[in-house]
Amino acid sequence: MKIFLSLFLISVLNMVYSQNVKSPSSIIAVDFKLTASGQPAYAVNYNNKGVIAESTLGIVLKDKKALTTNFEIANVKNSSFNESWKPVLGEQSIIVNHYNELFIELVQKETNIKMNLVFRVFDEGLAFRYDFPSQKDLNYFVIADEVSQFNLTDNHKVFWIPGDFDSQEYVYNETAFSDIDTQKINLNNGIGVKSISGKTTVQSPLMMKSPSGLYLNIFEAAVVNYPVMHLDADVKNYKLISHLVPNAIGDKAYLRTPCVSPWRTIMMSNDARDIVSSKMILNLNEPCKIDDTSYIKPMKYVGIWWEMHVGKSTWDYAGSQNAQNAADGQLKPTGKHGATTENTIRYIDFAAKHGFDGVLVEGWNVGWEDWFGNWKEDVFDFTTPYPDYDLDVITAYAKAKNVKMIMHHETSASVANYERHLDRALELMKKYNYPAAKSGYVGKIIPRGEFHDGQTMVNHFNFVARRFADYKMMVNSHESSRPTGYSRTYPNYIAAEAARGNEFNAWSNGNPPMHETILPFNRLLGGPMDYTPGIFEIKMSYYNKSKTEQVHTTLAKQLALYVTMYSPLQMAADLPENYEKYPDAFQFIKDVAVDWQESKYLEAEPGDYLTVVRKDKNSEKWFLGAITDENARKSEIKLDFLTKGKKYKAIIYEDAKDADWKNNPIAYKISTIEVTSKSKIKLNLAPGGGTAISFEPIK
Amino acid sequence: MKIFLSLFLISVLNMVYSQNVKSPSSIIAVDFKLTASGQPAYAVNYNNKGVIAESTLGIVLKDKKALTTNFEIANVKNSSFNESWKPVLGEQSIIVNHYNELFIELVQKETNIKMNLVFRVFDEGLAFRYDFPSQKDLNYFVIADEVSQFNLTDNHKVFWIPGDFDSQEYVYNETAFSDIDTQKINLNNGIGVKSISGKTTVQSPLMMKSPSGLYLNIFEAAVVNYPVMHLDADVKNYKLISHLVPNAIGDKAYLRTPCVSPWRTIMMSNDARDIVSSKMILNLNEPCKIDDTSYIKPMKYVGIWWEMHVGKSTWDYAGSQNAQNAADGQLKPTGKHGATTENTIRYIDFAAKHGFDGVLVEGWNVGWEDWFGNWKEDVFDFTTPYPDYDLDVITAYAKAKNVKMIMHHETSASVANYERHLDRALELMKKYNYPAAKSGYVGKIIPRGEFHDGQTMVNHFNFVARRFADYKMMVNSHESSRPTGYSRTYPNYIAAEAARGNEFNAWSNGNPPMHETILPFNRLLGGPMDYTPGIFEIKMSYYNKSKTEQVHTTLAKQLALYVTMYSPLQMAADLPENYEKYPDAFQFIKDVAVDWQESKYLEAEPGDYLTVVRKDKNSEKWFLGAITDENARKSEIKLDFLTKGKKYKAIIYEDAKDADWKNNPIAYKISTIEVTSKSKIKLNLAPGGGTAISFEPIK
Repeated sequence: MKIFLSLFLISVLNMVYSQNVKSPSSIIAVDFKLTASGQPAYAVNYNNKGVIAESTLGIVLKDKKALTTNFEIANVKNSSFNESWKPVLGEQSIIVNHYNELFIELVQKETNIKMNLVFRVFDEGLAFRYDFPSQKDLNYFVIADEVSQFNLTDNHKVFWIPGDFDSQEYVYNETAFSDIDTQKINLNNGIGVKSISGKTTVQSPLMMKSPSGLYLNIFEAAVVNYPVMHLDADVKNYKLISHLVPNAIGDKAYLRTPCVSPWRTIMMSNDARDIVSSKMILNLNEPCKIDDTSYIKPMKYVGIWWEMHVGKSTWDYAGSQNAQNAADGQLKPTGKHGATTENTIRYIDFAAKHGFDGVLVEGWNVGWEDWFGNWKEDVFDFTTPYPDYDLDVITAYAKAKNVKMIMHHETSASVANYERHLDRALELMKKYNYPAAKSGYVGKIIPRGEFHDGQTMVNHFNFVARRFADYKMMVNSHESSRPTGYSRTYPNYIAAEAARGNEFNAWSNGNPPMHETILPFNRLLGGPMDYTPGIFEIKMSYYNKSKTEQVHTTLAKQLALYVTMYSPLQMAADLPENYEKYPDAFQFIKDVAVDWQESKYLEAEPGDYLTVVRKDKNSEKWFLGAITDENARKSEIKLDFLTKGKKYKAIIYEDAKDADWKNNPIAYKISTIEVTSKSKIKLNLAPGGGTAISFEPIK
Repeated sequence: MKIFLSLFLISVLNMVYSQNVKSPSSIIAVDFKLTASGQPAYAVNYNNKGVIAESTLGIVLKDKKALTTNFEIANVKNSSFNESWKPVLGEQSIIVNHYNELFIELVQKETNIKMNLVFRVFDEGLAFRYDFPSQKDLNYFVIADEVSQFNLTDNHKVFWIPGDFDSQEYVYNETAFSDIDTQKINLNNGIGVKSISGKTTVQSPLMMKSPSGLYLNIFEAAVVNYPVMHLDADVKNYKLISHLVPNAIGDKAYLRTPCVSPWRTIMMSNDARDIVSSKMILNLNEPCKIDDTSYIKPMKYVGIWWEMHVGKSTWDYAGSQNAQNAADGQLKPTGKHGATTENTIRYIDFAAKHGFDGVLVEGWNVGWEDWFGNWKEDVFDFTTPYPDYDLDVITAYAKAKNVKMIMHHETSASVANYERHLDRALELMKKYNYPAAKSGYVGKIIPRGEFHDGQTMVNHFNFVARRFADYKMMVNSHESSRPTGYSRTYPNYIAAEAARGNEFNAWSNGNPPMHETILPFNRLLGGPMDYTPGIFEIKMSYYNKSKTEQVHTTLAKQLALYVTMYSPLQMAADLPENYEKYPDAFQFIKDVAVDWQESKYLEAEPGDYLTVVRKDKNSEKWFLGAITDENARKSEIKLDFLTKGKKYKAIIYEDAKDADWKNNPIAYKISTIEVTSKSKIKLNLAPGGGTAISFEPIK
């Protein structure tokens, strides 16, 4: 009966070779058709102008006929969707999810394989995905390749990093599309493990700007049980095609019907603020699957971490990460170990004094002597502290001071080993009352042959979030594959790094001043980033006169990052003693909120500048962050976001007149003024500078 | 200072180009030398006759100079060792470990890499291994290949199975060495996943017999953190060379100094009984690392298992292993599920009535609908029972009946998934008081690209043993890499399958009558095998008239297997109702011991016959097992192993006169006689037959 119906629909719909769907406001229009060879294809117009030229779609199966050509349309469904939902933590307390959907049921002639294509069109972009319904002729299957095209119409400006299966911790390159060339980048960049896959293969999110001023962003959402998609660029013809990250034997994904691919997203707007404020990626993910979210709380934290990056102390206890020094099984301390009970108590005291929620301690556990660079499998057991780290004493002390300890799970990318120990690690956290852990994946992956961005690892990162949820704990992954909105579904996945973080400034060529102005258009679209801002002692020569490394911002910009880089988990990354030298500036970090009712992007240009204001979720306070790249910047901000009729005390943390990220980075000035919604504030950002402002209602 | 000393030794010892070591009785002599190119080489004489011609040794490193040539001898140490130790469970209560050792310190010129070679020579064979001391220039390293030669001196008869990275469940081929050809074997043999690696690559243990009657066996011991060694045969020149099983990306082993390779063993004797009774493999393993071994107990068990193999019931609950039948998430029972509460209680009653220690239940947990053949990762969670299996009821009932339940962990080779769940699985076992589990690894390994016999999986099997030990539990692995004596170190690794087990007789071309006569010379050298003997309803036509499959033995031989196939874990594999039909024959299975004071191999010829007597560890009872291949066999056994002056009641379970594995397999006769150590007993074995005898002292 079903078969007859299908045949009937095919015969009727065969004539309908083209389908169309528009965004709610009609500004974006997507055309779908089958090509002459029966291959699915789409094209996109923005405001009646072509943005994506005809681009074909398809999936190549292993050991089966490719799902590329020979398709017929079996059915087409159009629908609209409009709802609001409340994220547990977020940039805003309510998110609107409004789109029109085109659902196209395809059948491949000869094989009778059914593959659907789903398009969702929002006002700031569109998304499509492959949908494989349950069917007799396709149950378990292996994806050998995905061939989704994104054919651009011009030689756009592109912010790109190379397609590296193991790392996204690159500096962004700003070039014309035609100049993408991964072989030209500086590889002496501090990245430990690199697996660059091609001369013109780049990663998504790929932020672009057309010569006519259209902002365009290609990314993906809901990467679940599927590898990360990189993009192969045809630099002559301005075309992009999906490049799935392979596994150890070259396969891309193991799937079973019914299943779906991740969403392939194309955001577009003439206003860059629409991109940076879009919630499309979150909207395309499944709703929250955690029933009791009461344990998921925002956190500001300090920790034993930056002091290792600046060389004041070490992660390891016995020798300069040379386990041969401990070959007899006896760990002999060097005296430079950071994670001691005593030092931890110092951080707990500091956190308690200044109102921080948590203290992270890295290097607390046995294994750091040879944790890196050896492709070693059994590195850490995640439960055995070094002899100078007393879990009982620290737990009791933290409890007395009302400070939460944040666990640290460096896996050194030995994922098999981590999974073997994860329940034990979580049981230890439960025993010692840890609400959250930071995890790390530095190194080449074990199981050997796998990559950070392959299906196996995507599944691992998602699995870890779920297992932490089993224990009602939060996780913040570093060196993971970059998020694509899974934190909507598992909001205990509170943050991730998955891009070049602040620590690169301590010991490598660092992050250029434009770095933080591109991240919100890029990495942050997928979820919060634990960027670890708040460095006050900007220059590493402070610690060691011979060093030339430095943070590539002013101090004021470090403050502004707490607002511009959205995360419900924010570290005050510098050393307590450095904060105590600048208590007035430190006050902003103490004051700033990390969970929000509302966010408004006032000014935005990728790679150049960003100004955003956010309203605390639990008060009437607002906070502003404004940052610039290497160029000084002046602008004037209207405060019309403030509640009308209310008076606010605004504390302005800005670059001093002569401040400059390179030559005078610490120079800042603080002023307090009274403002209302009718006020304007002039922003003066130094080269590599920023401004942070807190607005507190006057009662 | 150390360097000076080394140089001094080199200069002194450089002249000593050849070294020699003999077995305690001097019957085996090993010569070691460096070839003209500085490559290590050895040769072996047995009774002054060449058995292994000059054979070179070496290790090829990844990304480093090969450790093959250019060596100098830096030092040589000779030592002797003679000790006795008591296995927790075993064929005998005391094992003698007596050998002479030659320890050769080598240094490679140019690289200065140190690699030692260690030879241990016992009276029934020799072993050698590579030893990499801790050294500055070799810390972490990757083995690309091992090139250990075993150059034979004649065209021996060989019992071989193909070098398959994923399975040893083959029928043994008995051919001349020159006729080894893996492409000629019948692959329609019931093995689910095959990865045969070469035309003339075979597995070890490789049992051989020279034209002059010397029995020769090449194997390995203490395979820990290293892949399994297969053997490439040069069939023209009678040479063998090591073939290590690769990982997903072709590497062989990831090691770190100080470390050692497994032992490469060559057993030899003019008397086949010396091979089959050798404890050399166990002796070459590390002593027991478990402090409290009180929970490690032998077990005889029954279980819900054979009934699935014969088609009476199914492992899965909802559909013929087609999960699409349960696609809506609702499992709909077919009524054929074996592992029901009711059926389990029936088995518990049977076990209690007949004095069995345990009951195994397979198919108790959710996931069997599509467990096999899909390379599916998340198959089982090892903790969720089917709706018709009530863990609370069963646990209480078993406890009341004083029967232990045996857990079942089928992993379907999704090892990553098993490791993720192992602590949870073991916690469940603890909660429900399970002392042991049977594990299974049917399918292609996940992590994908790995093989059953690679380093990753060797490490997994050993890891599982250790983790079970954490919980004071025993494990019995099926489809694991074959044991090489790790049960000495972790005796809670109570048994393994890792060869073609009895179940192949139920649904494939089965195991030919010679099969059980070769296993003791082969698979069993590495540790106990859970062969699951005791099938009384020999022919599958009993269950389904159209079936032609059958067990390739007589019933009496099934009884004899309890003695000939040593294992402290023995299943009575047939259905309770079948045993109840033959209560007199069943009595032997009830009576037979599974842990021993002493074992004596009275007659042995690989591939032909085996007769062994064993003395119960906890009584004065003796048990005899005699088996033959497809040929009938008569012999006379002296009972001089019995205690002098004591009278014994001997119950003889033998083939009826007209018995025959093919045409009349069930026909048996039982007789009881009185005997002393001066008596003789005539054995009459039918084609594919056997005899089992129990000797009980008369008080």
